[in-house]
Amino acid sequence: MRMNELSTATGVPVPTIKFYLRERLLPAGERTHPNQSKYSEAHVRRVRLIRALIEVGGLSLASVRGVIAVLDMPGVQLHDVLGLAQHALSPPQSATPDTDDFRAAHQQVGALLEQLGWHVSSGNPGRNGAAAVLTTLTALNQERLTSILEPYAHAAEIAARAELDAVESAGDRDTIVETAVIGMVVGEPLMLAMRSLAEEHLSAQRLSKNSGSADC
Amino acid sequence: MRMNELSTATGVPVPTIKFYLRERLLPAGERTHPNQSKYSEAHVRRVRLIRALIEVGGLSLASVRGVIAVLDMPGVQLHDVLGLAQHALSPPQSATPDTDDFRAAHQQVGALLEQLGWHVSSGNPGRNGAAAVLTTLTALNQERLTSILEPYAHAAEIAARAELDAVESAGDRDTIVETAVIGMVVGEPLMLAMRSLAEEHLSAQRLSKNSGSADC
Repeated sequence: MRMNELSTATGVPVPTIKFYLRERLLPAGERTHPNQSKYSEAHVRRVRLIRALIEVGGLSLASVRGVIAVLDMPGVQLHDVLGLAQHALSPPQSATPDTDDFRAAHQQVGALLEQLGWHVSSGNPGRNGAAAVLTTLTALNQERLTSILEPYAHAAEIAARAELDAVESAGDRDTIVETAVIGMVVGEPLMLAMRSLAEEHLSAQRLSKNSGSADC
Repeated sequence: MRMNELSTATGVPVPTIKFYLRERLLPAGERTHPNQSKYSEAHVRRVRLIRALIEVGGLSLASVRGVIAVLDMPGVQLHDVLGLAQHALSPPQSATPDTDDFRAAHQQVGALLEQLGWHVSSGNPGRNGAAAVLTTLTALNQERLTSILEPYAHAAEIAARAELDAVESAGDRDTIVETAVIGMVVGEPLMLAMRSLAEEHLSAQRLSKNSGSADC
């Protein structure tokens, strides 16, 4: 198909597709004339993925480039893809704060992982992420909120297991890798949405219980 | 305390505190001289909260202003605070797409809520958020990932329950409201971190099971 057909098939405007090509997010088409190229179904798929990463995942161009690079690695194992995609998707880490509070929080996260029996590499960005949250809670005198750490771990395990189940149900290697990356990307806004719904439901439930009203 | 003492107590530089004052995120101190004001413990608490909202929550100034406005509403109920804070914390919604796919996704979310027995208002931003994710999955031919919706709902319920438990354990009304808002804000990066850890743990576990190695 031509560029304008690729645009119609994906709903992405031609100038945006040209931008993806210039930024090398999208591989060049097959040149058929000096000023014309032919694009394939693989291009349709890739354009949709890029748009999803940017619009739904809210990823920066640099992160999209990182994810695409992972997708295009030949013969890489799923487990490694997940790890690489996690790093590509993690918000850029500011330098690890060199404070006693942060070190203590980091150890607390390590202790929780041990207690859960989770084997996680020392470079997993989640360690610093969770430690940063704990450090903030301490700075805000909100130690009572550290009680959410363990339930959050259980919740995250349920979510991650569902994702892996879906990933493993995909057929060929390309689809498996793409499903893994998309699952990671949409998981964040989906969890945010679900929490918003769950919070309203539960707080209404507790409110009606506390106020003694029969139903609502 | 004076401005420079407020800076020392919070670790936030004086120019940043002046910026918070100018932006009316922080109430003015009590004027003691034409060029000097006195600040209280309430200011320390508020400065720390603003910094956490911006640095950990990644909120825009507009969102911080929205959250602060909710905190400062006199006599507002916790349930309403949660709802208002959710709206303040939700990413600005682009106009709801007027497409058949989006409408179908919206109905699918409604059906799931009914099935779960969750009572949630039609204005809850989570409805559109979840529908947007479903629409994306359809556009990407990743219908298999819609299987994560229900497990995500259960995971979100566990997370939200833990937050509400922590919130209810806070003593006075101001602390309750502050805990609720901080819990909402840190919940997002915390869940992201925990998912990252859970994904590595589970994918390593499955990989070793599939490859038949005894342990790792």
